Amino acid sequence: MDNIKQVAVAGLGTVGGEVVECLLKNAGGLAGRSGVQLNLTAVADPDPPPRFDDGKLKKVDRYDDVLELLDNENPDVFVELIGGVGVARQAIEKALKSGLDVVTANKELLAKNGEQIFEVARNNGGRIRFEASVGGSIPVVRTIRESFVSAELTEIYGIINGTANYVLSRMESDNQKFSEALKLAKDRGYAEADPSYDIEGDDSAHKLAIIAALAFGGRVPLENIYCEGITGISPEIIEDARRLGYRIKLLGIAKKVNGGLDIRVHPTMIPRASALAAVCNEYNAVYLQGEPVGSSMLYGKGAGGPATSSAVLADVIDLAAGRKEVEAPVYFSDTPLAPVAVEEVKTRYYIRLSAVDKPGVLARVTRILGHWEISIETVIQHGRSGEEDEEVPVILTTHKAREGAMQAAVEEITELNVIGSRPEVIRIEEGFEGE
Amino acid sequence: MDNIKQVAVAGLGTVGGEVVECLLKNAGGLAGRSGVQLNLTAVADPDPPPRFDDGKLKKVDRYDDVLELLDNENPDVFVELIGGVGVARQAIEKALKSGLDVVTANKELLAKNGEQIFEVARNNGGRIRFEASVGGSIPVVRTIRESFVSAELTEIYGIINGTANYVLSRMESDNQKFSEALKLAKDRGYAEADPSYDIEGDDSAHKLAIIAALAFGGRVPLENIYCEGITGISPEIIEDARRLGYRIKLLGIAKKVNGGLDIRVHPTMIPRASALAAVCNEYNAVYLQGEPVGSSMLYGKGAGGPATSSAVLADVIDLAAGRKEVEAPVYFSDTPLAPVAVEEVKTRYYIRLSAVDKPGVLARVTRILGHWEISIETVIQHGRSGEEDEEVPVILTTHKAREGAMQAAVEEITELNVIGSRPEVIRIEEGFEGE
Repeated sequence: MDNIKQVAVAGLGTVGGEVVECLLKNAGGLAGRSGVQLNLTAVADPDPPPRFDDGKLKKVDRYDDVLELLDNENPDVFVELIGGVGVARQAIEKALKSGLDVVTANKELLAKNGEQIFEVARNNGGRIRFEASVGGSIPVVRTIRESFVSAELTEIYGIINGTANYVLSRMESDNQKFSEALKLAKDRGYAEADPSYDIEGDDSAHKLAIIAALAFGGRVPLENIYCEGITGISPEIIEDARRLGYRIKLLGIAKKVNGGLDIRVHPTMIPRASALAAVCNEYNAVYLQGEPVGSSMLYGKGAGGPATSSAVLADVIDLAAGRKEVEAPVYFSDTPLAPVAVEEVKTRYYIRLSAVDKPGVLARVTRILGHWEISIETVIQHGRSGEEDEEVPVILTTHKAREGAMQAAVEEITELNVIGSRPEVIRIEEGFEGE
Repeated sequence: MDNIKQVAVAGLGTVGGEVVECLLKNAGGLAGRSGVQLNLTAVADPDPPPRFDDGKLKKVDRYDDVLELLDNENPDVFVELIGGVGVARQAIEKALKSGLDVVTANKELLAKNGEQIFEVARNNGGRIRFEASVGGSIPVVRTIRESFVSAELTEIYGIINGTANYVLSRMESDNQKFSEALKLAKDRGYAEADPSYDIEGDDSAHKLAIIAALAFGGRVPLENIYCEGITGISPEIIEDARRLGYRIKLLGIAKKVNGGLDIRVHPTMIPRASALAAVCNEYNAVYLQGEPVGSSMLYGKGAGGPATSSAVLADVIDLAAGRKEVEAPVYFSDTPLAPVAVEEVKTRYYIRLSAVDKPGVLARVTRILGHWEISIETVIQHGRSGEEDEEVPVILTTHKAREGAMQAAVEEITELNVIGSRPEVIRIEEGFEGE
């Protein structure tokens, strides 16, 4: 029966292990509700996990080396779940050159070497699918590429790192410190032993680069993405956000502004009542704005083996069913989208500073902000001690201001001898549906 | 250039007019970011709207009668946007029999005659796409059919009528009566002159039938969907919901329960903090639960010409690009999904009754509930007057109980001579992410 398609999987980790289990379970049957039959013929992993010690793989060709697999096998679809930019890249390029269709979840590789990979695909007629590289089971790639193919997208806001979102959610709902929440995330398996890739924003930047390239049609060099993590978020800032009607999220933001691309990842205050603010714990969401579709949001499990395996299998089934691409030709463009310098970005700000509690201090701060044309929206000075020279927190929010001006103003404020330490600054984004 | 595909559109109303405008604007160019060129060759409408009086359609063949169009033209894709189950059905079947690919937004036709339409498609090798029939620009059909093709979906919750959601949102945020909110919805163009199709739940039922058939693989006869509208929702109920931590939504609910299908449309209290409760005003959302995808939500503009035209064009581009279907073969099944009788459904309840304010009344009510094995979770008796025989509201919430038992209990409570009028009952659903 020529409807049976052969599949090979490289990398039997969290996601790869699930994909292989699903393929084995369905052997000879239809894949899900599709009309396609998939047959797992080969796997590659130098160190397969114990779950496969029981002989489940005995009818499958096993390789330590993925390149050896590609020398010896001829699957209809090659699934790369090794990760990283080393052997994974070699394997994908080799597979594409052999005319194989490829499915990958490798966000780092696509963010860093996407244009080279797609050029190999284009030159060899191969097809490559990568839904699982962004947002686990959330169909963000397919939605932008297919459902919104005729829409003009203008803004993207993504909660696209489950670890960071889990930590911020726990800090907010359990009044935990960052370190406590991070420990809980590790205990629950939502954070790696070294969590810096997640909490410093690099993971979000990789995913945002892929989404923005798809949505806006052009390459997004990683070095153009301004990136700031969540390690500086204190319980005090979380509490201020609550009082001001906001919630803090590590947001990936990409906007088309006057033909340029404003793209950044940083902790952001967003209105508590918005649908985006309701995305909590390990869940992810991508909020898209454009014409004529208006505001859209895709929400779901952004990580984890089972959820991500569902996205991998959907791509495998698509390719196995022989679907032609509805290619966004611009995606293949190697023209980078012109960045807007982060200094030129305009946004609202929250500022928290610790100031000596005596008359005239606020005047000096506001004079600096005024000099930099930053206009204040609210000032909250709470917990006045009454004791001379004691420091009390002052919370300000501003109207829209230039990032460059804000940075300069913060430098000047920090140098005032009545300010205890460098002010903490969080950007505010508004205008979401549901506010 | 054989990459140019011919398109004919029947029905130039709100959605059809937008689709035609988009096709005219893009004439000869790529459709959106796709690699496909679309060419509008013919339209049919007995009474084209004034927007086309200016000669825009002069290069296009125009017909009053869609069947005449199909006799004379041979487009690659035929787009049906007439609506209803009369000539629209004739046209779609005729087009499919001629081997044309068809795109439709006709939820009523698919909900009522879907299995016949799909049988014609199957017998003639035609393809039919219908993303725009549910949820405007929200990619719910594509997500279930393609992205979640290998997932086992178990529960669907949809806010799938923008008129009803707008009315309920206004009642809540502006303390308006139902009639006032409905008038506002009409003034803003979110409600028809005769709004009953929207506010009585029929529109939601049609859409839910389509989503459930796709997700669960089987026909869903409309008569199996229990349906209750929002006309009975008073400001008092809205206020009670707020105090109890809920928000009221007109929800389409479909759940697989012990091999049967629990499917219903009714006003429902859901936790205010859930992501689903943040879906307000004219926005729609579909919340899906399943394995291994977990909880997912798709959110966006559920209606309106521009947003819906985006879904129509995505389907046209798909077909024009020659995509093969990843068919869910079960969708074509004419086997109806076995319904769970609404009396057997188990859910939590809110009950509001107006009772004479004297000792023993609550005891008589609770005795009836106890007799029917309905266990009470909370009782709120507020605003005691102190004057004998005056009626005061009593608010109860229950644990999960059988619908049939609740209906019987309500009959008995209504007959008590200390109860002012029939109790108001709203079902409660919980367990959403974000709560």
